[in-house]
Amino acid sequence: MRLRNVKGSREMIAVNEFVVPEDADVKGQWKSVFQNDHKIYVEIGMGKGRFIMDMARLHPENNYIGIEKYSSVLVRGLEKQQEEQLPNVRFMRMDAEQLCDYFAPGEIADIYLNFSDPWPKDRHAKRRLTSVQFLRRYEQVLAEGGGITFKTDNRPLFDFSVEQIAEAGWKTEALTYDLHHSEYAEGNVMTEYEERFSSQGNLINMFRAKP
Amino acid sequence: MRLRNVKGSREMIAVNEFVVPEDADVKGQWKSVFQNDHKIYVEIGMGKGRFIMDMARLHPENNYIGIEKYSSVLVRGLEKQQEEQLPNVRFMRMDAEQLCDYFAPGEIADIYLNFSDPWPKDRHAKRRLTSVQFLRRYEQVLAEGGGITFKTDNRPLFDFSVEQIAEAGWKTEALTYDLHHSEYAEGNVMTEYEERFSSQGNLINMFRAKP
Repeated sequence: MRLRNVKGSREMIAVNEFVVPEDADVKGQWKSVFQNDHKIYVEIGMGKGRFIMDMARLHPENNYIGIEKYSSVLVRGLEKQQEEQLPNVRFMRMDAEQLCDYFAPGEIADIYLNFSDPWPKDRHAKRRLTSVQFLRRYEQVLAEGGGITFKTDNRPLFDFSVEQIAEAGWKTEALTYDLHHSEYAEGNVMTEYEERFSSQGNLINMFRAKP
Repeated sequence: MRLRNVKGSREMIAVNEFVVPEDADVKGQWKSVFQNDHKIYVEIGMGKGRFIMDMARLHPENNYIGIEKYSSVLVRGLEKQQEEQLPNVRFMRMDAEQLCDYFAPGEIADIYLNFSDPWPKDRHAKRRLTSVQFLRRYEQVLAEGGGITFKTDNRPLFDFSVEQIAEAGWKTEALTYDLHHSEYAEGNVMTEYEERFSSQGNLINMFRAKP
């Protein structure tokens, strides 16, 4: 996604009720953030937030947290949420590397990774959200039976991720190189990017895997 | 591999001490075939047999069975074996579909699939040796902890296989799109085809997976 600096975005998210501040002591405390003990689903790299808000609308019985590195992007999702006021959605500006600082073991039911940054240079492989380094972080915060659901149109990134899943000793429960024409198409909630990209006839890769 | 009819090949394998006849009642009886209770490793589609014989030479503590559909191909491996007389090698002409007729549950320690026929047409997908249909057969004969090790230069076949492994609920223990430059290169025993193909700079894909 093209980044543009949204003036005042840092200030906007700093005081919004749906944004969990970076300095909040939330690790192990998410039940009190949501005021319930529903399962917590996290999207890392929520972008403009369409996916996480669609999910939250479809599943009011769950809680959803959208994580985004850039406040100028996060603020775009926030605008929608301020209109809708979905009670089961929170946003947080965070580097994904810090995940274990904000979530206690078992606190996340499932993680969504949608069209993550491919970091195409080899020396940046560790930064890819499906690298073994990240999988080890997810292991620390996922609940029993939890895992990641990963979608991308970037085939080299997908192939890298398939290697990393094996490397980490994780198990792939579902995998397809053409999500929209697979058995997993039904119930698939599309991201903005996914809709645009697949409407051009391109393929979406998807897997679900767990430790 | 190009097939040519080798005159008299059926007759040759019919009377050879290293070839287990198709009508032999070997299911559950392989210990008596080998006259020991060493682990049994099977290569499905042994071709000219170089891989299975290299393995047998490297691991005299194991037994090896090379399965081949075509007697005209099998006979080529047999010529080598008649010179070498490796005590831990047997060959069998068999359609892989019949595997469960010749092996009892748990009788095979591991299965090797090397450069299997890609069966490129969709309607032939079930014939691919890594299809779910075949994985279900392997489940019936593999010992606890056993699995398949699959090598191919055919990327579409490899990708199909990765999907099928997930579909079958198997677990991938190792996976690489470039075997010869991966951590799994050491100790890799090459097939004739693999040596020729990779010397041209092409990539070998490999995974090891188990139920």
